Amino acid sequence: MLKPLMNFTGGLAAALLVMSAQATALKQEDISVAEVLRDRALESSDAYSHVESLTVEVGPRRAGTKGDERAVAWAQQKMKDLGFDRVYTEQIDVKRWARGHAHAEVTAPFPQPLVVTSLGYGASTPEGGLTAEIVEFADVDALLKAPARKVKGKIAFINKRMERARTGEGYGPAAAGRSKGMRAAAEKGAAALLLRSVGTDSDRFAHTGMMSVDGVENPVPALALSAPDANLLEAMLKRGKPVQVKLNVHNEALADGPSFNVIGEVVGREKPEEVVIIGAHLDSWDEGTGALDDGAGVAVVMETARLIAELPQRPRRTLRVVLFGAEEIGLVGAKQYVDAHANDLEKIIMVSESDFGAGKIWRFDTRIPESKFAIADQMMQLLAPLGIKRGDNKASGGPDGSVFVAQGVPAMTLHQDGTDYFDYHHTPNDTLDKVDPENLKQNVAAWVVMSFLATEMDGDFGRVSTEH
Amino acid sequence: MLKPLMNFTGGLAAALLVMSAQATALKQEDISVAEVLRDRALESSDAYSHVESLTVEVGPRRAGTKGDERAVAWAQQKMKDLGFDRVYTEQIDVKRWARGHAHAEVTAPFPQPLVVTSLGYGASTPEGGLTAEIVEFADVDALLKAPARKVKGKIAFINKRMERARTGEGYGPAAAGRSKGMRAAAEKGAAALLLRSVGTDSDRFAHTGMMSVDGVENPVPALALSAPDANLLEAMLKRGKPVQVKLNVHNEALADGPSFNVIGEVVGREKPEEVVIIGAHLDSWDEGTGALDDGAGVAVVMETARLIAELPQRPRRTLRVVLFGAEEIGLVGAKQYVDAHANDLEKIIMVSESDFGAGKIWRFDTRIPESKFAIADQMMQLLAPLGIKRGDNKASGGPDGSVFVAQGVPAMTLHQDGTDYFDYHHTPNDTLDKVDPENLKQNVAAWVVMSFLATEMDGDFGRVSTEH
Ligand SMILES: [Zn+2]
Ligand SMILES: [Zn+2]
Repeated sequence: MLKPLMNFTGGLAAALLVMSAQATALKQEDISVAEVLRDRALESSDAYSHVESLTVEVGPRRAGTKGDERAVAWAQQKMKDLGFDRVYTEQIDVKRWARGHAHAEVTAPFPQPLVVTSLGYGASTPEGGLTAEIVEFADVDALLKAPARKVKGKIAFINKRMERARTGEGYGPAAAGRSKGMRAAAEKGAAALLLRSVGTDSDRFAHTGMMSVDGVENPVPALALSAPDANLLEAMLKRGKPVQVKLNVHNEALADGPSFNVIGEVVGREKPEEVVIIGAHLDSWDEGTGALDDGAGVAVVMETARLIAELPQRPRRTLRVVLFGAEEIGLVGAKQYVDAHANDLEKIIMVSESDFGAGKIWRFDTRIPESKFAIADQMMQLLAPLGIKRGDNKASGGPDGSVFVAQGVPAMTLHQDGTDYFDYHHTPNDTLDKVDPENLKQNVAAWVVMSFLATEMDGDFGRVSTEH
Repeated sequence: MLKPLMNFTGGLAAALLVMSAQATALKQEDISVAEVLRDRALESSDAYSHVESLTVEVGPRRAGTKGDERAVAWAQQKMKDLGFDRVYTEQIDVKRWARGHAHAEVTAPFPQPLVVTSLGYGASTPEGGLTAEIVEFADVDALLKAPARKVKGKIAFINKRMERARTGEGYGPAAAGRSKGMRAAAEKGAAALLLRSVGTDSDRFAHTGMMSVDGVENPVPALALSAPDANLLEAMLKRGKPVQVKLNVHNEALADGPSFNVIGEVVGREKPEEVVIIGAHLDSWDEGTGALDDGAGVAVVMETARLIAELPQRPRRTLRVVLFGAEEIGLVGAKQYVDAHANDLEKIIMVSESDFGAGKIWRFDTRIPESKFAIADQMMQLLAPLGIKRGDNKASGGPDGSVFVAQGVPAMTLHQDGTDYFDYHHTPNDTLDKVDPENLKQNVAAWVVMSFLATEMDGDFGRVSTEH
């Protein structure tokens, strides 16, 4: 069931809502142009070449690293090459961290190496490593409930499997272990945390990702295990003898440093101050080349804007492509963007982000007033032939987009098929070969319909409910 | 077309051939027992538990390592537990080698790390590493033909893709680069060899494997690249600028040491001195747990013998399970077995090896006199319902089995579906989760038919042609 969306920002928004209610439909001529754009996207868009370029010429680009710097330079140059009217950066401040080595091995009763990786911003072992018995928990809640004496001095092993789903809905429950596990382990005096990777594959890759580290007094090493290695520990534990694991980990916390949101605009012909934001995040984790996460999204929104910039005239409003920095380490670029532009947020008509890999789009969600559903319905006329069905009115806007939604900015989400996304997510295996060029064309076709019509529509969506 | 098999070992073998021609069919009562064994295998055989045990309790077991030692102990205990009549080991001598680290990164024009692994028995870089331009070759033949000046001081990059096939027939052409590439690179004064992995996957795993190293005067570091990393180098080279790669590799050649063939017998009731050998190799590469290569084979032949040992009476001849040592580093265990038993080879009625993963068996090849095809036809009556078709009369007997075939020992091969085998072969990703328990049951069902009937048949196959 849809929750009713409520106006909450008072006077100005209420006024906008009244205005916009007067014209709830799109013009036929705009729909015709959108149709042409869509078909051009299907035939000749080339988002694949952008993600190819980013992965080959930059590759890994974790926030605050040299790769991140190169990505920022790459993005600016690419946007200029693609014919954007304005290209600029906005600096953000990021925590920095250097990944060193992470080795793990079972020392008893069945000595063999384990494939692990440090979770983001994780701590080191003492020089020479540490060896301790592992103690298994079904999930992070079981660890949280466990008495400290059961955990103290041991390596807490969270062994929760993630469920595969097109929507990726298994991610949240599994990722709780990643975000909260190390803190729980540290508070109970554990020697370290071993986490079954948050992923759906059964390959020998550990999935990294961000933890909550702020304010943890004595952080302990926190490592993800590949699924086959988690199976191995599980099988050893079933044999009933204590299982000893040796960890040797080195990472370094670094001083804060700069990163950047990279922004490119196709400037509106009539209302240049009114803005439709389409975004993706430029940063990636550091072990893959960030093809799916989020090179594909970067490519889709860039190509969407390129197609619109190639029209004989500029759209009515400004189309702003924002490539957010430091998404992976806590939506840092989006949060600092919203803070820096607090006074301009009302000029943001709509936000949408592409950040769920390179699968086909199958569902169109909105977060707009019900009185404006006619616009979404008209968009659907062009989206339905792409195999997309109408979803709900609880669009998150994507991870970075959700930061805008939290301020009442209307949002749309073009849901991608994420069935395989978490096979690769945050692993060394997130590489270009996982991207299907044909799927990207379908993505761009949908994005260009949504983006173009949002820039052209009469009236706007006002402000929307920030409830989930 | 089948080549006619020729008798080549002179008098004795000719005599055997005449003898055996007198009784070319199997007894109906033996066929009935084989059918019961087959159906028991399908219902209740448990090869999976053996490969689970080997991968969990031992794991990696490269020849000459501690893991290998543990595997030898494991195999003896398991065979005793399974009710074999005799269990023993035969020592072999193996070259030994310690794998250290292997790091590679592009330093220009697009700095990023590469996923690599040292090929077996590979050399180290100088302390601190080496940096050189890469030069690409379509295959090892192109490298062999290249003038030394094109290669000297550079890193030779062999970029040959392996074709996927049920038979695995793409392996040979691609593996030539692995076996011969380092020698060719060294002779032309290259700084190192980078080889696109011999594999069919597109995952971020490099596939290790053996090289020809004997007599190479100045061996150079030799690394396999994962397929996505080979793609990356290829894409960088297409951009037209020199591509510089830094390698930092450390390995150590060690003194020769012992390993073992582990042998278990179900001793024949009538002709104990006549032997049917069913084999697999106990060693594995060191980065995976050797589930497919060759834990599955070990499990299948062990379980086959267990089922036969559970019959109310022993088979006519001896069924000998040989778990060969050091297969991966050059069929060392098989070669030393054949040398040590040169005088007993005529007592080996037939050899067969399971060493192609855990896929379903789909084809039954033989290497027996044509006059004995009736026996194979009768075996086929029980194999066909398992989805197995009759193949040719050029059975290799498997990698280790081929060493016996080269001495004229008759052979049979139960071909497995190897479509996916080279996705995992010689990578860290060769783990238990890749093994389907149901497929193993089908394997055991076929093996038990073939093995039991070979131990029971009247007469034998004499000696066979050693031609391919
Ligand atoms: Zn992402
Ligand atoms: Zn093998």
